[in-house]
Amino acid sequence: MKIVIVGASGTIGKKVAEALREKHEVVTAGRSSGDVRLDISSVASIESFYKELGKFDAVVSIAGEAHMAPIKDIKDVDFRKGIDNKLMGQVNLVLVGQHYINPTGSFTLTSGTLSGDPIKMGVNLSTVNGAINSFVIGAAVDLENGIRINAVSPGVVEDSPEYFDAFPGHIPVAMDKVVAAYVKSVLGAGTGQVIAVH
Amino acid sequence: MKIVIVGASGTIGKKVAEALREKHEVVTAGRSSGDVRLDISSVASIESFYKELGKFDAVVSIAGEAHMAPIKDIKDVDFRKGIDNKLMGQVNLVLVGQHYINPTGSFTLTSGTLSGDPIKMGVNLSTVNGAINSFVIGAAVDLENGIRINAVSPGVVEDSPEYFDAFPGHIPVAMDKVVAAYVKSVLGAGTGQVIAVH
Repeated sequence: MKIVIVGASGTIGKKVAEALREKHEVVTAGRSSGDVRLDISSVASIESFYKELGKFDAVVSIAGEAHMAPIKDIKDVDFRKGIDNKLMGQVNLVLVGQHYINPTGSFTLTSGTLSGDPIKMGVNLSTVNGAINSFVIGAAVDLENGIRINAVSPGVVEDSPEYFDAFPGHIPVAMDKVVAAYVKSVLGAGTGQVIAVH
Repeated sequence: MKIVIVGASGTIGKKVAEALREKHEVVTAGRSSGDVRLDISSVASIESFYKELGKFDAVVSIAGEAHMAPIKDIKDVDFRKGIDNKLMGQVNLVLVGQHYINPTGSFTLTSGTLSGDPIKMGVNLSTVNGAINSFVIGAAVDLENGIRINAVSPGVVEDSPEYFDAFPGHIPVAMDKVVAAYVKSVLGAGTGQVIAVH
């Protein structure tokens, strides 16, 4: 299986790439690292990425930025950061990629626990995560040729202690459980699922 | 209480306005009807709307459009219709309105059942509805001065038979239950709630 991993240089991405590389061909894509350059905030970049890639069986996206700030300081332009990057970046990986992926292929996107379990200054990320969850639910009933789509919704991972203070009382999740969620989405049978790892 | 209703000319909006008018001052706002002109897809329109309105206690938004199409035909520009209108329109009603609303005031937004219960051609609406639900969850913990925020998530209402064929097997919900959900959000005590009427 030929699997694309977007964001393979991140804390989670590295481990997912490692796990999938054991038995599959993995192509890593990123804005500034990886096998291929890809900026998910640009539709043109996504289109030329897929055109050059050739046929593939799965996309795993563990990428996307949002804006952290108290709501009183957030304006439309700030809120659009998460919308244009973590939300529309991942959505466009699917909207464009559906025309290039092999039949019975799969898309795996990343949301996160803030969709339902909020923190201070996290409203942009909460919104985007909830949007991604409902996007895979809505997309799964419409995608053709047996193409599957799921979201992994991780909590703060144990390997990212720099985030612990921003998530008071959130119990850090074990990295092997997070990696297993991505593996389940790619190699398993589910579609339209939000795989929560909280 | 002075209550703004955005989208008061719609099937649900009319009934909500009627119910709240019994004991409160209601100002209706809409793109082409109502007491005041307001285009939620324009931040400038929202800003001038609030500036002219003066102090108020609640905003109820029952407005917002999205794009209905099979996912294979959807491109970034199509998907942005729901993002820019039903999502960012309602988000901006809050981002701007938080600086004008009276202390202990409230915002009530509208999402919908497709966030978790998808239909064919509904992926844009599913995404936007999920985003609105998580936006109120994330915003509620950050809003100051006792300002509350909730979403009402209605199913297809019994008064809209034109939608029944697009929602096969969805049991139409009684309008009085939908109206009650908005009344609960405005006059009740909850915040960060998604009030589902399915």
